[in-house]
Amino acid sequence: MGKAEATKERILEAAMAEFSAYGVAGARVDRIARTAGCNKNLIYVYFENKETLFTTVLEKHLSRVYSDLVVTPDDLPGQAGRVFDFAMENRDLMRLLAWSNLEERATEPAARAKVHDSKVAGIAAAQADGKLNPGFPAGFLLTLVMTLATAYTAANPFASLDPDATLDTVALRHHITEAVRLITTPVE
Amino acid sequence: MGKAEATKERILEAAMAEFSAYGVAGARVDRIARTAGCNKNLIYVYFENKETLFTTVLEKHLSRVYSDLVVTPDDLPGQAGRVFDFAMENRDLMRLLAWSNLEERATEPAARAKVHDSKVAGIAAAQADGKLNPGFPAGFLLTLVMTLATAYTAANPFASLDPDATLDTVALRHHITEAVRLITTPVE
Repeated sequence: MGKAEATKERILEAAMAEFSAYGVAGARVDRIARTAGCNKNLIYVYFENKETLFTTVLEKHLSRVYSDLVVTPDDLPGQAGRVFDFAMENRDLMRLLAWSNLEERATEPAARAKVHDSKVAGIAAAQADGKLNPGFPAGFLLTLVMTLATAYTAANPFASLDPDATLDTVALRHHITEAVRLITTPVE
Repeated sequence: MGKAEATKERILEAAMAEFSAYGVAGARVDRIARTAGCNKNLIYVYFENKETLFTTVLEKHLSRVYSDLVVTPDDLPGQAGRVFDFAMENRDLMRLLAWSNLEERATEPAARAKVHDSKVAGIAAAQADGKLNPGFPAGFLLTLVMTLATAYTAANPFASLDPDATLDTVALRHHITEAVRLITTPVE
């Protein structure tokens, strides 16, 4: 890696920490520069402005999700379990997604919509094959799996008061996959 | 209502709009003052600072939730339907809750924890009575109901891509209550 590339990487890492803690409006470019050990102007040269830096960081981490997370429409409880594991290990990214959703100034990465559509098609096919409960729209089932699998992260304002949130993650994972199983099992 | 009370009400209304759009960090007190048609300094006199103004607005709206929303632990699908209706009619409050969860500087209203605990106790009693699936912790079931009922609001970053989000709310409400029914019905 060249020197410029190494500096860019340090900036992206510092930006991830700053944005996940404070969001776009609360983030300070001078704090990112200090953490990355570089000149503040260099950030504007490389990444234009705070908003485009946010979008760059978000797209970088989402593309990792897309390549790492295997999608199994035939096994949505298993899918929920794997998304849960990923969400628990990547709490910063969950915060980033939540900020992005609220701070509508940040542009939605185009890749997200594309990946979403292919997942929905897979679920619809599994429903047509009789492997999944056909009583719900495929898009609803995907939203449900993602929502339940990430329920115990900062992406959900309704879990913070739950004493079970401090349970061991093994128990939480079990309850979430079981809930998805009850919803997605084809009716006899 | 006296003149001071009327001004305070206008400030709280303007603050609700500003905070739900921009969060605490992104909100501007001078914009709130302009919308409320009052002097900026008056806001500091009445509400101390931006953070305490945020907490005041959040507590005011939450206390309305607590008095308006009937809790029915024996009927969690019905409960999910009513929370869904409320969330759809109060999208600003959903955004406020999501900001509050991310911007950890804002203090959690004490009333929220108290109301939460009494709801969990009601669900545990219904489970002991055989009216609810005992296979999940009561706190988990409450989180699940709240999370699914608010899945199609700004409080959930995973619904924005779902084409079903543009469905009529009657269909969404049906799918959500049906999902809660499948999870909470006692196993034969």
